[in-house]
Amino acid sequence: METSRRGFMTAAGAVAAGLGGPALAQTTKGLRLVSFTRRDDKTLKVRCGAMRGDDRIVDFADAAAREKTQLAFDPGDMISLAASGEKGLAQARLLAEKGAPTFALADVTLLSPIPKPARNIYAVGWNYLEHFKEGQAVRKTDQTYPEHPVFFTKGSHTMNAPFGDIPFDEKVSTMIDWEGELAVVIGKRGRNIAEADAMKHVFGYAVINDTTARDLQQKKHGGQWFKGKSLDGHGPMGPWIVPADALDPDKLHLVTRVNGVVKQDAMTTQMYFKIPRIIAELSLGLTLEPGDVIATGTPPGVGVARNPPEFMKPGDVMETEIEGIGVIRNKIAAV
Amino acid sequence: METSRRGFMTAAGAVAAGLGGPALAQTTKGLRLVSFTRRDDKTLKVRCGAMRGDDRIVDFADAAAREKTQLAFDPGDMISLAASGEKGLAQARLLAEKGAPTFALADVTLLSPIPKPARNIYAVGWNYLEHFKEGQAVRKTDQTYPEHPVFFTKGSHTMNAPFGDIPFDEKVSTMIDWEGELAVVIGKRGRNIAEADAMKHVFGYAVINDTTARDLQQKKHGGQWFKGKSLDGHGPMGPWIVPADALDPDKLHLVTRVNGVVKQDAMTTQMYFKIPRIIAELSLGLTLEPGDVIATGTPPGVGVARNPPEFMKPGDVMETEIEGIGVIRNKIAAV
Repeated sequence: METSRRGFMTAAGAVAAGLGGPALAQTTKGLRLVSFTRRDDKTLKVRCGAMRGDDRIVDFADAAAREKTQLAFDPGDMISLAASGEKGLAQARLLAEKGAPTFALADVTLLSPIPKPARNIYAVGWNYLEHFKEGQAVRKTDQTYPEHPVFFTKGSHTMNAPFGDIPFDEKVSTMIDWEGELAVVIGKRGRNIAEADAMKHVFGYAVINDTTARDLQQKKHGGQWFKGKSLDGHGPMGPWIVPADALDPDKLHLVTRVNGVVKQDAMTTQMYFKIPRIIAELSLGLTLEPGDVIATGTPPGVGVARNPPEFMKPGDVMETEIEGIGVIRNKIAAV
Repeated sequence: METSRRGFMTAAGAVAAGLGGPALAQTTKGLRLVSFTRRDDKTLKVRCGAMRGDDRIVDFADAAAREKTQLAFDPGDMISLAASGEKGLAQARLLAEKGAPTFALADVTLLSPIPKPARNIYAVGWNYLEHFKEGQAVRKTDQTYPEHPVFFTKGSHTMNAPFGDIPFDEKVSTMIDWEGELAVVIGKRGRNIAEADAMKHVFGYAVINDTTARDLQQKKHGGQWFKGKSLDGHGPMGPWIVPADALDPDKLHLVTRVNGVVKQDAMTTQMYFKIPRIIAELSLGLTLEPGDVIATGTPPGVGVARNPPEFMKPGDVMETEIEGIGVIRNKIAAV
């Protein structure tokens, strides 16, 4: 399988391995914002750009330079693009459609669209009732469903590329589980955001997998989830950001597969706390910033709740796909 | 009371208000690394420097320029200094002792020594057995003491200046509680750090208050602590970083006062999980970076465990002091 110099499976590698074709073809044809490195750049500088069709990428820095466009954002920093508002997004859209030159997907390595988040990834627990219930059976507690969203964070080094390997170290955890989720990327700073205004703060959406070390999450650390949610590379995201106006986040089909077998199959309609409520409660007394990522919770079908429980081992391939966005695909790899 | 242009009580203001003199006098005379802005700089650029005596500050950028010293770190970024190893620390020590010019403490505003952390603040829960027990009475559960440290995070915007106001908004929380703690600042990158090597990864120590909104922590969000620990400005830290070789972190006297009344009075000797164990377990599969901050847990005496419970209200002054480091002092201020 073709891998990048950093050991990540590239998008082209995934397609070549027969894993990528049909899934990628289901994705939107609209604006898809990517962060990437180019193989012709030995410095591996992080760049922002957009997909053109299924297999070409426009590099915003190069395209803007050629057209002498003064960009409203730093083309090497997706957080800056997220913060740049309508002007930046309009420029990105124009370059995505008409900018040149373009590069073959095979000649880049896709990174997480937000490769270096400025703080931890916000995450919501138990946001699908069926997932809360499947967990009850495992936890053997009589906890009632919370009246407010359950927030925790994933360490910033969990961020991983859409086709990046997930590190597996049996000395750290042997209970690595999948949690396919819709990721919300914030575009506009705010605190105490009203539910009615919340969607104005959304820059776009991506696929994320809130990969979880169940042994660390559930038993070892006194009931706080942070550690089990925060192993390096255990938060792959991508393959790109689809802008907020491109889809209805409440009506998306989400599927997680392991080695091609469907494990989670749900609609985001099933989310208990909807995105406006999540943003309103999270931002209460807490400032959200452009580029902040919120993982909105996972549907039922996780490994730990199966009978017998299932966990991933080196060599397994975890795919997370959301209709209208795309698919991320990550191999579990021993370190 | 004298406040800075950003509304923070300045160090000089605290001294003028009769709050600062004796406590500051108890602090170490050794190297004390500060982040600050200068009043003569309208751009409020963040600068690094060191204390000279009780009331003067050396600005590393200016002092290095005057002596044509090529610094091993960016003098506007304490994270860079933390990462610069022995060479940077030796330069800082020399400038602190002999560099010029110096500025009066009254002419600067002290910031958190790590004013803009690159990720959330790591924190340890229940790390003093007496604090775990006092909480049991409130929680009314029969949870046994965990065999591993309890890790959670505080949002990066909780970071506040050593004399900064703590925002109070009754619409967000009316149960604001104190948690005085010893903060460890990481100096050397590492993952899977062995206990025996852990202390080599420590850059220094500071005082932190893991200020907590108990209503949000305990009831509203399904048992995950993140939200109640993460209100903006609810993590004041400072007043400076004392380098790792300057003290024995296991033998420090820690006191928290509210309006001059002692609420917490403990020795760090009482910490259940010592710093090497905390670093080893936290870094398991998770890379720690220079400038990362770990709040090591609070001793007994928090407000929520008192009978009747006590919480802070606007106008209250919370002081957190650690022998050999210094005191931070924060006023609760309605927003």
